[in-house]
Amino acid sequence: MSGSVYGNIFTISTWGESHGKGIGVGIDGCPAGLKIDESYIQTFLNRRKPGASKYSTPRKEDDLVEILSGVFDGKTTGTPISLIVYNKSQRSNDYSEIASCYRPGHADYTFDQKYGFRDYRGGGRSSGRETIGRVAAGAIANAILAELGITFTCYTKSIGPICIDYDKFDKETILNNPLYMPDSEAAQRAEEFLQQQMEQMDSVGGIIECKISGVPVGLGEPVFDKLDANLAKAVFSIGGVKGFELGSGFEASKMFGSENNDSFYADDSGKIHKKTNHAGGVLGGISDGDDIIFRVAFKPTPSIFKTQDTINNNNENIKVNIKGRHDPIIVPRAVVVVEAMAAISLVDLLFINMTSSMNKIRDFYL
Amino acid sequence: MSGSVYGNIFTISTWGESHGKGIGVGIDGCPAGLKIDESYIQTFLNRRKPGASKYSTPRKEDDLVEILSGVFDGKTTGTPISLIVYNKSQRSNDYSEIASCYRPGHADYTFDQKYGFRDYRGGGRSSGRETIGRVAAGAIANAILAELGITFTCYTKSIGPICIDYDKFDKETILNNPLYMPDSEAAQRAEEFLQQQMEQMDSVGGIIECKISGVPVGLGEPVFDKLDANLAKAVFSIGGVKGFELGSGFEASKMFGSENNDSFYADDSGKIHKKTNHAGGVLGGISDGDDIIFRVAFKPTPSIFKTQDTINNNNENIKVNIKGRHDPIIVPRAVVVVEAMAAISLVDLLFINMTSSMNKIRDFYL
Amino acid sequence: MSGSVYGNIFTISTWGESHGKGIGVGIDGCPAGLKIDESYIQTFLNRRKPGASKYSTPRKEDDLVEILSGVFDGKTTGTPISLIVYNKSQRSNDYSEIASCYRPGHADYTFDQKYGFRDYRGGGRSSGRETIGRVAAGAIANAILAELGITFTCYTKSIGPICIDYDKFDKETILNNPLYMPDSEAAQRAEEFLQQQMEQMDSVGGIIECKISGVPVGLGEPVFDKLDANLAKAVFSIGGVKGFELGSGFEASKMFGSENNDSFYADDSGKIHKKTNHAGGVLGGISDGDDIIFRVAFKPTPSIFKTQDTINNNNENIKVNIKGRHDPIIVPRAVVVVEAMAAISLVDLLFINMTSSMNKIRDFYL
Amino acid sequence: MSGSVYGNIFTISTWGESHGKGIGVGIDGCPAGLKIDESYIQTFLNRRKPGASKYSTPRKEDDLVEILSGVFDGKTTGTPISLIVYNKSQRSNDYSEIASCYRPGHADYTFDQKYGFRDYRGGGRSSGRETIGRVAAGAIANAILAELGITFTCYTKSIGPICIDYDKFDKETILNNPLYMPDSEAAQRAEEFLQQQMEQMDSVGGIIECKISGVPVGLGEPVFDKLDANLAKAVFSIGGVKGFELGSGFEASKMFGSENNDSFYADDSGKIHKKTNHAGGVLGGISDGDDIIFRVAFKPTPSIFKTQDTINNNNENIKVNIKGRHDPIIVPRAVVVVEAMAAISLVDLLFINMTSSMNKIRDFYL
Repeated sequence: MSGSVYGNIFTISTWGESHGKGIGVGIDGCPAGLKIDESYIQTFLNRRKPGASKYSTPRKEDDLVEILSGVFDGKTTGTPISLIVYNKSQRSNDYSEIASCYRPGHADYTFDQKYGFRDYRGGGRSSGRETIGRVAAGAIANAILAELGITFTCYTKSIGPICIDYDKFDKETILNNPLYMPDSEAAQRAEEFLQQQMEQMDSVGGIIECKISGVPVGLGEPVFDKLDANLAKAVFSIGGVKGFELGSGFEASKMFGSENNDSFYADDSGKIHKKTNHAGGVLGGISDGDDIIFRVAFKPTPSIFKTQDTINNNNENIKVNIKGRHDPIIVPRAVVVVEAMAAISLVDLLFINMTSSMNKIRDFYL
Repeated sequence: MSGSVYGNIFTISTWGESHGKGIGVGIDGCPAGLKIDESYIQTFLNRRKPGASKYSTPRKEDDLVEILSGVFDGKTTGTPISLIVYNKSQRSNDYSEIASCYRPGHADYTFDQKYGFRDYRGGGRSSGRETIGRVAAGAIANAILAELGITFTCYTKSIGPICIDYDKFDKETILNNPLYMPDSEAAQRAEEFLQQQMEQMDSVGGIIECKISGVPVGLGEPVFDKLDANLAKAVFSIGGVKGFELGSGFEASKMFGSENNDSFYADDSGKIHKKTNHAGGVLGGISDGDDIIFRVAFKPTPSIFKTQDTINNNNENIKVNIKGRHDPIIVPRAVVVVEAMAAISLVDLLFINMTSSMNKIRDFYL
Repeated sequence: MSGSVYGNIFTISTWGESHGKGIGVGIDGCPAGLKIDESYIQTFLNRRKPGASKYSTPRKEDDLVEILSGVFDGKTTGTPISLIVYNKSQRSNDYSEIASCYRPGHADYTFDQKYGFRDYRGGGRSSGRETIGRVAAGAIANAILAELGITFTCYTKSIGPICIDYDKFDKETILNNPLYMPDSEAAQRAEEFLQQQMEQMDSVGGIIECKISGVPVGLGEPVFDKLDANLAKAVFSIGGVKGFELGSGFEASKMFGSENNDSFYADDSGKIHKKTNHAGGVLGGISDGDDIIFRVAFKPTPSIFKTQDTINNNNENIKVNIKGRHDPIIVPRAVVVVEAMAAISLVDLLFINMTSSMNKIRDFYL
Repeated sequence: MSGSVYGNIFTISTWGESHGKGIGVGIDGCPAGLKIDESYIQTFLNRRKPGASKYSTPRKEDDLVEILSGVFDGKTTGTPISLIVYNKSQRSNDYSEIASCYRPGHADYTFDQKYGFRDYRGGGRSSGRETIGRVAAGAIANAILAELGITFTCYTKSIGPICIDYDKFDKETILNNPLYMPDSEAAQRAEEFLQQQMEQMDSVGGIIECKISGVPVGLGEPVFDKLDANLAKAVFSIGGVKGFELGSGFEASKMFGSENNDSFYADDSGKIHKKTNHAGGVLGGISDGDDIIFRVAFKPTPSIFKTQDTINNNNENIKVNIKGRHDPIIVPRAVVVVEAMAAISLVDLLFINMTSSMNKIRDFYL
């Protein structure tokens, strides 16, 4: 119940504020013998690094990760892994004037009400920089899953009204455009759209889609720790998320059972498949062996440069003009955060599933 | 991490199968001195009782709850509350023939794969009857919240393509139609629509909307135990849920920051409000004092009477004709289940928030 | 953090009061395919049943257990197991007069202070009858461990000043005397000693010793979830426990390193052993493959028939004469409770250990 | 269930190895508004610092703590606190030769068996240096408790056969001798005794006693999260602990009920007291308002300079001569570690107790 700790067996705890000494994460419950080094984790952090494109904050940070514990001779030891990224570019002065002001769409008001005061520098703990810890831990979760053949395809599905066309889906394209879209034409139009909104001093939202392949049948615990329920929490804990859906999602509410049910069939080799995947790879909260597919809706970045009405901490009505460095959209840099949280929540279920039957336990110990 | 236990301070653990001796729930962490009796809990159970209308399974069950522990002289004692509902109408024979068959859209296949075998009688543990325990526990959570002025308005927003009209919203209407819709005209059209699908031996999905009023500012723990993240998990753990959204939800992905941001203002009395509530009552994962508003998408009932293709547990391709007693739609009876899970997840955050500052702790103990 | 739930993967939650409708336990996280029936669980309950000898309360209870869920065709299904024992002989009147009185050595005072009031009938939730749930769950944990060759030898080591003589240790004797001592001569002397104290209207304490054999190397998680730390909590949660020690225990505080260190050696077959076992089978919180040996000190039964000074709930100084039915000693009936708690705490560590290295995880899934 | 995380509401997670970059701890669930700075935490760390006397390892470490997050303007913010102590003096070469050898009384063998390999430098994760994180977190827990008037008196009760004389108990003396004994004469004799054993290249054990005053009535959750059960686990998780007892402890096993029961009485002001405190301040697992008193037995330091028999990781019988820097006794430096773990486990119960009755919850929110 302590808010910054996530997981039961594979446990992560993030710490750090936007303008403190650094951001970090502790990972406990990582098995021994996993090959890990800083350069591998860095490849994940680089996907959320600021300043990578004109659509992300120009804040200059290399966000270089350092392993402080839990790795010996290039392998995890089974003991806690501590990772840190020091904050470099802090420019607190940008924020001094909003210390007393509650920015619309931000957590300034709720933090002050809950705690009595807050670290107002750059959003403090509620800053997007907190996700650095999640991504670093997610890289390790991803490494565990990769060894078992579980892989992620995570990308921007839409930005504002501009959505990808599945006929033009190209996995390679994802990492080759600043918006992480799998459709280069949609990416082009989205860039133009973003450019216009930036000129309007406004921001936009979007949708991230994630596909997880190679998941064995059986992950997920009935009834509360269902695979999809844990995914929903993991993903909804990311700032700016307003919606989560699995498989046919909200569309399922308009479908008939005869449409939405996925028929099972055995192929010639006797292998089991589903003719369709409206389930999104989860039946009764347990993975069915098919791809897990989910979508996440993000709201527009609350930090916009237009003048806004709000109040200050004396409850006086005021106008606020936000300065500083802000992304016009959260989505592209959030793609790797969504992937990270999904990986982290899957590892717990992968581990717990090992104890689901006496046959498995006997085979392990005898 | 044990799948049938939910919560950290206010903890519930449900047990029981569709055709076992009964269904029950244990509640630990309920404060002492709460007035509770069986008739109060029964009012919640009656909202999900089968056979209440022609749109729910004709299975005849009174689902009468019995309090086995934790209540003395009409008040909770602070010790575990055990509640049981005995199964009456079981008719296992209806299900015998599907023992070897994997029904499309059901958990038969995943349970067998995970556990090696399953209680195939009526879905066993994955049956909707498991939610009896949730609703009984939810009644108690609801009683705690009610004492603090926190109230729920939970209803059917849409059934298939038929959605309520907010101009015709009437709270009283909700309990006066079998579909729990707040718009009697929409309810009428939805009943006709349902009737047609039942004749087609098909089923339909729908959306439930829930509004929680009177929530104090400050509930929710950054960063993983955000109020909305916990709600998402609580609600997604209900069978048949495919989507969850808060406030502006998926629509937020198409909005501009200048539209979606809710401006704060102080009224003449100095009280704080938001001009709009796109946030759905949660900022940075913490309640902002406004109504909490969320929506849940349910898939169509997987049990349909049309002949379907599937496989058996010898991996042979077969046809299945489902018999027995099944609702053509999950949504109406699920309204109280959604309300229950929301109440249960809020109580944990309500309790943990009491320890968020030294001032509060000092005031309590000194 | 909810007091009546124990365990992380293999989770038990007990409920029920001495004079309520019954006592029960829910078990979640039990693997599927374990052969269990009521008669097996009953053999454990019979070891703590009241009225078995003149040294235990004459309260007549058969304490027959009933399985309510989680078992199908004689095997566990992997879903929650609910067990209940109905209370038969309640005689509340015995207790009515102590409703307003705080018995020395009992939890009456602390319960009233914590909760504002209490179920005063027979100690309510703090009654020894609560351990029925622990013993029933322990029977199931014991069955899991037995399949892996892990066995328990748990007995009364001393009653008051009378201690067993290890030269006369006979395992068969344990279940053949009402005090569960492995030395028939000591048992005889202890019975005479107890008889005298009962005539004095007094009670006595004692020590239980437990040996666990066949534990594989590697159970226990550094640093907080050490095997011995978890055992200590599990055992100290039993009412009346005042001390816990492992291996050389308190004696170790007077020993030299050269005495207390256990030298490792390899026998001709290359198998590893320790020349001694001062460690009690645990090194660095992890099982070392040797027998786990621990001792538990119990205080004398607080319910004595001598007149005692105390206060009532008006804070008035009064005299109290306890009536009703009370054991002159807790120890013999607690032997199976200690065994149960040890088994329950081991299962969690047995499961979690399966995820300690990537090699083990790869072998499981690939 | 992840071994290096402790606590439910007030959660700590330690990380770091003896010869890694540093040792640290994350603290989540610390209330906002607590005055904390590095110099305050340092006073606790200095009590376990090596090289402070000739009875502790000459390893030279200042063990200076640095606050990385969670504190702003000198007060905690309610968000995670990250503390780090960098390792300075590492001399890995001292340890290289024992990389392949399993030292008697150490965790070398069990770590290798559990994880497949280990960080062999100075015990790696099982080194006493891990306790730096506990002590730093304990300083913060202690600060919370101090604000509520809860104070600790923790000291060395005995070293080998030499025990303090309560008639000569002087609290001031504790911090004025290198062994942290409250009796200067006993301390003198203990120093001479230690000197002899060091000349014998041997080590000794001892007992730590801890008294906690000012604890309000009501802390502790029946039935598993009893105050004493949680204390037992917290203390037993410290390396080298072999025994734990509360109040009359093991002696209670030889007492009569009429001796061991503590009579309640009301003084002239109506305040409640116990005539004696055999209970050690806990009744039914709940604090009774009296001093909490417990004792902890430590084994002798396993690292001795005498030649010992053991095996290497090829299961060959060998002789080992341990070099390096080792305390001849663990006890004096462990005094502050015991105090830290006790404080940490109390905070959780202090917080959870705030939710034990509806009256308390209503008073808080309404």
